[in-house]
Amino acid sequence: MKKNISSSEYKEGIIAGDRMILSKAITLVESSLPYEKFEASELIDQILPYTGRSIRIGITGVPGVGKSTFIESFGLQLTSQGRKVAVLSIDPSSSRNKGSILGDKTRMGKLSIETNAFIRPSPSGNQLGGIAQKTRENILLCEAAGFDVILIETVGVGQSETAVKELCDFVLLLMLAGGGDELQGIKRGIMELADMVAINKVDGENVKAGNIAKKAYQQALHLFPPNDNKWVVPVATISSLDADGISIIWPIIQEFKKLTTSNGHFEKNRQEQNLSWFRTGIDQALSSHFLENESTQSKISDLEEAISTGKISVKSAVNSVMDGLRNSTQTGL
Amino acid sequence: MKKNISSSEYKEGIIAGDRMILSKAITLVESSLPYEKFEASELIDQILPYTGRSIRIGITGVPGVGKSTFIESFGLQLTSQGRKVAVLSIDPSSSRNKGSILGDKTRMGKLSIETNAFIRPSPSGNQLGGIAQKTRENILLCEAAGFDVILIETVGVGQSETAVKELCDFVLLLMLAGGGDELQGIKRGIMELADMVAINKVDGENVKAGNIAKKAYQQALHLFPPNDNKWVVPVATISSLDADGISIIWPIIQEFKKLTTSNGHFEKNRQEQNLSWFRTGIDQALSSHFLENESTQSKISDLEEAISTGKISVKSAVNSVMDGLRNSTQTGL
Repeated sequence: MKKNISSSEYKEGIIAGDRMILSKAITLVESSLPYEKFEASELIDQILPYTGRSIRIGITGVPGVGKSTFIESFGLQLTSQGRKVAVLSIDPSSSRNKGSILGDKTRMGKLSIETNAFIRPSPSGNQLGGIAQKTRENILLCEAAGFDVILIETVGVGQSETAVKELCDFVLLLMLAGGGDELQGIKRGIMELADMVAINKVDGENVKAGNIAKKAYQQALHLFPPNDNKWVVPVATISSLDADGISIIWPIIQEFKKLTTSNGHFEKNRQEQNLSWFRTGIDQALSSHFLENESTQSKISDLEEAISTGKISVKSAVNSVMDGLRNSTQTGL
Repeated sequence: MKKNISSSEYKEGIIAGDRMILSKAITLVESSLPYEKFEASELIDQILPYTGRSIRIGITGVPGVGKSTFIESFGLQLTSQGRKVAVLSIDPSSSRNKGSILGDKTRMGKLSIETNAFIRPSPSGNQLGGIAQKTRENILLCEAAGFDVILIETVGVGQSETAVKELCDFVLLLMLAGGGDELQGIKRGIMELADMVAINKVDGENVKAGNIAKKAYQQALHLFPPNDNKWVVPVATISSLDADGISIIWPIIQEFKKLTTSNGHFEKNRQEQNLSWFRTGIDQALSSHFLENESTQSKISDLEEAISTGKISVKSAVNSVMDGLRNSTQTGL
């Protein structure tokens, strides 16, 4: 028997830090049923005054760089200091077992049983934009539930790195010593967008290579355009197997927050993110209203084929889509 | 007395390489009058079979790096080899004297009087997306008119670099020796997207610093993820005052074209660009149809203010815009 939770029960439960209610609220936000969409929107509005007080940290890097192990170590360190840590992720790939929390719980076995930690897998969906938007709302729900550190992990290859930048206050890029082919698959441009570079797995025989890589990245970052927020991107060597190595990360993030709060860029970045989400949200809503029916989608596919084979110009293809909408009495274009 | 040019006169004139007709066609494409929009769309379709045979080269870098002087030297070198060179630009800033070709002609005095060169300033407009889209169509018109090298210069600071990547086959990033503060204003991430880095103004007393910078950039680029197209980004020192220095650029671009043509990435990149323009074009068309009226714009401004001050969630703001459209009988949402 499914018990209906009222809007105020959701709100009170979340603010009281009730895990079960939080989980259900996230499921509500991720729902695509029209009625639940409306309910979710109301809920987000109600909890809005309780949001924004966390630090949102993106963790990115190629598969195999050790993101999960890092998050487990880092998360445990933070919870041991009394912090409440939520772990969310963005995974636009279809390969992963969606909706199952089992994968994450297995990957982060110790963190998942911590009272002060909350792990939730990536929202499902086919479009990165939609997935990222849901993750964004999940961040707000976790903040309202009292989590003060939100870790957002990118899972897919090459697509989700830009989205994480749009969601986070601070982006940590994990790298391996060696570079070159190990970097295959990471989105080009992300290195210049990272707020910190950490070379992971620098232990045992890797120490020498790690230190060489550190120096090389420091020199390379020096050639990048300076950040508007005056932050100088640090490079560190860490080992997720060694708690000491990890312990340098949190103080650096605190320094970042202090600097960017004092010069106004912390708040400015969040405001710009919100306005950008607003514009993207409108575009998505218009597009999903007008384009997500079968006949328009099939028309778009045909036009894409015609563009690819040089049979029609992009301009005419766009006109053709718009004419199609105009001729449909429903849309009144 | 204004003489009307028919659609077939446009087409024949452009294909015959008639400069006056080409200029008028570009003015037509840049027009925002509904009837002319339709005419422009037809024209682009008609010339489509004659397009695509040029190499589209983006030239980017901070103001003061010497883009115009470089383009003049490079352009003159190409025309002296019998190539036909068109110079277009993207300038989303409002500071420049729009519609006047005077600025460009003054900046590139010798190139502007070359028979085989054609210089056209940036289309006017407030939105980068719209400006870039018009530049894109201008590329097609110039190609149909027989220009085999299209140089696209970014003029604004920090915004147009990404757009140029979406328009071009090859992006040349001009840098100065020294880096650091000189990089202020360039869009972060562009260094990783460049297909070649050229350190400009390496002459006289700058030679030593130029060579040090070259080595540093070479090492830094080595740390970037490899390109899908297998291209290894070269770093060169050049001097726009010295024709010899410039002469290394064209053979490198030829090498790039040869490699990427043979592995299919040249064509693949253009196809992906076209599909991306198609999707952006639909979004822009929907948005301009539904959102570009005064009352919706003022509603959006109010909502942006409410978002910035934390009074409303992004989700609710999006819903509010969509509800507004739904209630208007005109749209039939």
